[in-house]
This record gives sequence, C-alpha cells and structure tokens, in this order.
Amino acid sequence: MATLGLIEYRDAAPEVRAVYEDILEVRATDRINNFWKAIANDAATLKRTWESIKEIMRPGALDPLTKEMIYVAVSVTNQCGYCIASHTAAAKKTGMTSEMFAELMAVVGMANETNRLAAGYQVEIDEAFLHPFGV
Amino acid sequence: MATLGLIEYRDAAPEVRAVYEDILEVRATDRINNFWKAIANDAATLKRTWESIKEIMRPGALDPLTKEMIYVAVSVTNQCGYCIASHTAAAKKTGMTSEMFAELMAVVGMANETNRLAAGYQVEIDEAFLHPFGV
Amino acid sequence: MATLGLIEYRDAAPEVRAVYEDILEVRATDRINNFWKAIANDAATLKRTWESIKEIMRPGALDPLTKEMIYVAVSVTNQCGYCIASHTAAAKKTGMTSEMFAELMAVVGMANETNRLAAGYQVEIDEAFLHPFGV
Amino acid sequence: MATLGLIEYRDAAPEVRAVYEDILEVRATDRINNFWKAIANDAATLKRTWESIKEIMRPGALDPLTKEMIYVAVSVTNQCGYCIASHTAAAKKTGMTSEMFAELMAVVGMANETNRLAAGYQVEIDEAFLHPFGV
Amino acid sequence: MATLGLIEYRDAAPEVRAVYEDILEVRATDRINNFWKAIANDAATLKRTWESIKEIMRPGALDPLTKEMIYVAVSVTNQCGYCIASHTAAAKKTGMTSEMFAELMAVVGMANETNRLAAGYQVEIDEAFLHPFGV
Amino acid sequence: MATLGLIEYRDAAPEVRAVYEDILEVRATDRINNFWKAIANDAATLKRTWESIKEIMRPGALDPLTKEMIYVAVSVTNQCGYCIASHTAAAKKTGMTSEMFAELMAVVGMANETNRLAAGYQVEIDEAFLHPFGV
Repeated sequence: MATLGLIEYRDAAPEVRAVYEDILEVRATDRINNFWKAIANDAATLKRTWESIKEIMRPGALDPLTKEMIYVAVSVTNQCGYCIASHTAAAKKTGMTSEMFAELMAVVGMANETNRLAAGYQVEIDEAFLHPFGV
Repeated sequence: MATLGLIEYRDAAPEVRAVYEDILEVRATDRINNFWKAIANDAATLKRTWESIKEIMRPGALDPLTKEMIYVAVSVTNQCGYCIASHTAAAKKTGMTSEMFAELMAVVGMANETNRLAAGYQVEIDEAFLHPFGV
Repeated sequence: MATLGLIEYRDAAPEVRAVYEDILEVRATDRINNFWKAIANDAATLKRTWESIKEIMRPGALDPLTKEMIYVAVSVTNQCGYCIASHTAAAKKTGMTSEMFAELMAVVGMANETNRLAAGYQVEIDEAFLHPFGV
Repeated sequence: MATLGLIEYRDAAPEVRAVYEDILEVRATDRINNFWKAIANDAATLKRTWESIKEIMRPGALDPLTKEMIYVAVSVTNQCGYCIASHTAAAKKTGMTSEMFAELMAVVGMANETNRLAAGYQVEIDEAFLHPFGV
Repeated sequence: MATLGLIEYRDAAPEVRAVYEDILEVRATDRINNFWKAIANDAATLKRTWESIKEIMRPGALDPLTKEMIYVAVSVTNQCGYCIASHTAAAKKTGMTSEMFAELMAVVGMANETNRLAAGYQVEIDEAFLHPFGV
Repeated sequence: MATLGLIEYRDAAPEVRAVYEDILEVRATDRINNFWKAIANDAATLKRTWESIKEIMRPGALDPLTKEMIYVAVSVTNQCGYCIASHTAAAKKTGMTSEMFAELMAVVGMANETNRLAAGYQVEIDEAFLHPFGV
C-alpha cells in the first residue's frame, strides 16, 4: 500500500513524467522506485525532492559511495525500514561490499551507544572541540 | 558538570590509567576527552567502550575518515551535542575539509527528510530491494 | 498479534466496557481500534489514556483537524507505523484532503532536514528568539 | 559558536547576498537568523534550503500558521533546541497565541506517548486504516 | 528562560496552587521543579500531567526506583537534557547508587547499539518471540 | 530476510560456532536468535557484541529482570520492532509478569510525553539537579 497510491508512468501527468525520465537517465536504470511513485502524488514535492537529491548525491568533495553509506547510517539510526532497504541496495550497487556494510553497521551501532553514554553521563563539551575549523 | 564528575589521571585507579595510556598512545594525543573521564567512573564501561571503539574505528574496509564522518552523521541525527562537537573535531583532525563537512551535512539533512517522506507516505518496500547481496 | 492480545467488548471487564462505550459515543463510530483493545489489558492505562486524549483532542484554541495533523507529524517523525496509519485515517475523516496531506508531509520532511542542519552546524540560538512571548 | 562560523552580509559572496536579500524581502524582516548565516558557508545548501522552505511554507492547502506549528511539533519531538526556539518565535509572529502553544504542546506530548504505547504493545494495524484515501 | 515563563506559587491561580500543594505533599519536598512551573501556564496540562505521573509512578508491580531508572533510560535515549538531569536526581533520591547508575547507562548504551544492528541487518522477528504471553 | 542472510551453526566458521556455543550455554537455551545469525556475517561484530552483552546483562548492582526491562524501554522508545519483540520475550522469560509489562509501558509512554513537554516549554535545568551525586 501507500497512503495515496503509486503513480505509474502511464498514468502520470507531464511534469511527473519529466521527473521520472530524468531519474531513469541520471541513474542509468529502467525502473522507478516506489518512493518516487508515492510522492509523485504531489508533483511539487516530487520535483523538489529529486532536484535536491540529484544535487546532493552527485560526486563532489565526497564520492557517491560515501554519500550512500551516510544515507544508510541515518536511515538505520531512524529505524526507517523502507530507507534502510532502498539505500542499502543503492550502496551495494555503487560498490559497497559486504565487508564495508559490516563495518558501516559496526560504526553506526557504536555511535548510537556512545551518543547515549555522553548524554546520560551529562558530559560537558571540551574546550578543545569548540572551534574545529578555527573560526 | 558530569553526573559522577570527571576522573583525572592523577586520581585514577590503575586499570583506568592503563586505558588512558592506551588512548594517548593509539590516538597520538596528549589529552583525554571529558567523555572518557566521565565514563571512567565505571572502569568496566571505560575499558569495554575503548576496546570496542579501538577495534571498530581502525582502518579496514572503510578508512578512518569515512568512519568519523559516519559517526558525525549518527550524532547529528540523534541531536547529541557533545558527540557532534567531539566527532566533528575528530573528523577535522582526520582530514575532513570544510567542503566535505558541508556535503556531509547536506546528505544527513536530506536523508532525515526522505526518511519521513517514505514513512509518512507509507511506501512499501520494492521487491528489487529485498536481497541486495543475493542471499 | 499484540503482546497481551486484544480485548474484545464481549470479554471485557465493566470498567473497560465503560471506556469502550465512551469512545464509541464521543467519536460517533461503531468500532474500537486495535490500539484501545491492546492497552485494555491494563484498565488503568486504558482509562487514563482515553481521558487524556479526549481532553486534549477536543476543539479549543486549535481545531480538531489541526490537532490530528500535528499527531501525524509526530508519528511520522518517530517512524511509528501503527500511529501513522491510524492518525492519517483519523485526519482524513476529520477533513484532511490529499492536498493537505501532501503539504503536511512536505513540512514534516523539511523540518526533519533543517533540525539536523541546525544541530550539525552547531548554530547558537539568536537573542531574538529567547523570549517569544515577552516573559 | 557555529562549526564554520557565521557569514555576515558584508562578508558574503554575491550568491549568498542574493539569498539573504530574498529572505529579508519574503519575510519582511530586517535580520537574518544565525541558521542562514551558518549554512551560508555552503552556498549551494543555503540556496537549496531557502528555495525549498520558501516553496513549502507559503500559503497553500494549509495556512502558514498551521505549517509553523507543525514545524514546532517536529522540532520538539526531535529535541532540536535551536529549532524549537526559532520556530516557536516564528509561530508566535505568525499569530500563535499562548493558548494555541499550550494546546500544541499537549498534542505533541500525547502523540509521543501513544506512539510508544502502540509500539510497545506491538499493535497490528487495523484493516480499516489501510486505504485512507480509497486507493 | 522558559517559553511562557515560570509560574511561582505566589502568582498562581487556585487550581495551580492546588496541584503544587499536592506535589509538595506526595513527594514530601519543599520545592516545585521548573518543569511544573513551566507547564503551569496551562492549568489543564499541569493537572493532567501531575495526576498521570502520580498514578504511574506510585509503587505497583514495579517499585519506584525501577520506575525512575526506566524514566532515565527513556530520557537518555531521547537526548532530553532537562529530563536526564531531573530524573537522575530523582532516581538518586529514591535510592539509586552510583554503581546502579553506571549499570543503567551500560544497558541503555548497549540497547541503543543493538537496536541499530537489528534494524540495519534487517533481521526478521523469530517465530519464538511472537506470543510472549501465550495469547 | 536479512541483508546478508542468516548463518546457521552447520555453516558457521569455528569462531562463530564458539560464540554460538557460549550463547547456548550462558543462556541455557537450545536456539540461537536471528539477531546473532544475522550479525554472524561479521565475526568480529558477533564476538564483540556478545561479549559486551554478556558482561552488561549479568547480575550486578541491578538484577537481570530490571536490565531486560530497561532494554525494552529503550527499544520501544526507538521503535525497533525486532528488539521490542525479542526483549519483551526475554523479559517475560526472566520473570516479567503482564502486570509488570503494563506498568513498564505506562512509564515509557509517560517519559516520552514529558520529555517533549520539557523540551517544548524550553525549561531550564533547576540548580538542585546539577550535582546529584555531590561531585
């Protein structure tokens, strides 16, 4: 299911089709994920989300695989079932090996643990951490 | 402050001192963060947490900088003030530039957004995502 | 399933039946949701939760539809599958159109994104925000 | 503080100034919040975030005050100190009275409570909730 | 600060004073926490919240100290600074030793870690867990 | 499913078998949960996680049942479906009655509610909470 149903290409309005076509081309794939078909019920959200993701996920100071693994880390921390599945698949496709996945999980788990130890022990921020970039 | 206070080296029991010395050596630094001084009130937690972090954060299938950035991504998602400050500083020291930091933030922000769009639209997981590693 | 099973009206103790009857009347419906049937295993929690929700969700300075949409916003942020489904249905029944739902999702997504940008960039609170109601 | 410092108008590059000017005009204000000054270190994120917020927060099927209150609901759920302060101030400016604020808090609190009761009792989604919009 | 200010006893309306007096008596204390003074701006929320907490936190199948430690566990997981401070103090007063606090933190940290490992590895629920109470 | 599949005893490497055997013995059970079979794809994570849990969950200043209930409290707050199911079953096995479970849920729900009231009303920490253990 999906709250408003899924919009298939054949039933889509022109501005939705245009986004679908751009997704297929940029990602060099032949299928549109349920995520896009679900938010396509709101053409403005579809377009804005896709344009943002396209801009953010392209190679820059960080490579696409690092970005996909960060996406997985956030999704796991948030317990988002759909996002864990879709971004793990995307990271795998971008080159994540099972060894990399396992290390990613280890770091995500540990960070979630120490985040609570730091909060629970009410640790004050060290002076040394205050201006990491010198500003 | 810190719930149980901070344990300084001079006041520490031998097993705590041993962990502090290992931290100083492995990290090639001359200071112990407040985090360690706070959890040092429980020598078992100090030792276990340090041994786990040492094992998890060492170079493997993922490099140390990628691991530190994943740590930042989790800490930001969890709104852990101490951890954001300490791991941003650590990532900077490991080689994260301000450009990398900015891209990291962009991915973390976007992932937190689409995590909620996926959940809110109640999107079902695509068949294609079910066995990313073929098992 | 449900941890302690679901309590049907015919099997319910008098104090549980009394709450069920009040729910049916106040909500002008002929069915009790699984949520109430599950927590009915603890009559005190059932009664307290229902009385609280009845008081909180009734028209006041905010109208019932706004309140239901806020409920959806929280449930989506928390990734609570049951609550997203039940409160989206409730909001729809209270008058939420698909256009309103789509805008609600857009705001929830964006807020979750900027919450992390603000935390990740460690932004200090502006003086101007400190006393919104002048006290 | 702020991880990369705050970019003031006088020190800003032309594309950052252009966004600042648009913010000042659209919001009919004479000050730029620290949030924008912090993310202005990444002109692409500044521009994308502002364009998205401008599109999402403008009057539509939901009015601006409802949108601001939803923003507060998410920020409170996420424990984002900066965002709670800034969006409570923004909601107040848009017309939120102290009575509306109090009811907003009551709903947010209650939703966070029942989200956990539903999850903890492992309640299954009612058939009746599956297709809220009939699709 | 506090969004709507703090309501002191001398300035409080009769129904707020009545709650304050009940808090002082039930808790055998001579001070009202800022939490109550802040939500006292909404007498209905003050009364409902106090009545609920009084009912929930009294000795039952679980003793008061166990309940306070569970409160700390939730507050730490949610990164709620105020709640961590207030409930750690309350648990201490109810009998929590520093050894108990340290073990509490260790469990909370570990649970937050394995919650993410379980989600990240997309582990399916074992048949054996489905009907813990046989219903 | 599980991202990397489940490792059964018969297919396991010696170091994984050794952990499985220790789990079976320490827990006096004859089955290995899916959680362990899933993370067994990474022998280092399996061993480290098991050793940590074994150390943390053993009787100490807190008894095993209290520890299991704290584990449930965290898992419910995080909306981790797998962990709620597995630790509710474990707590039941350790002696949690349905009355204890119901009170546990009531406390967890309430804590999640007041965590947001405290954050939303921007309540400042009382002086009295600052040094709970006098340090």
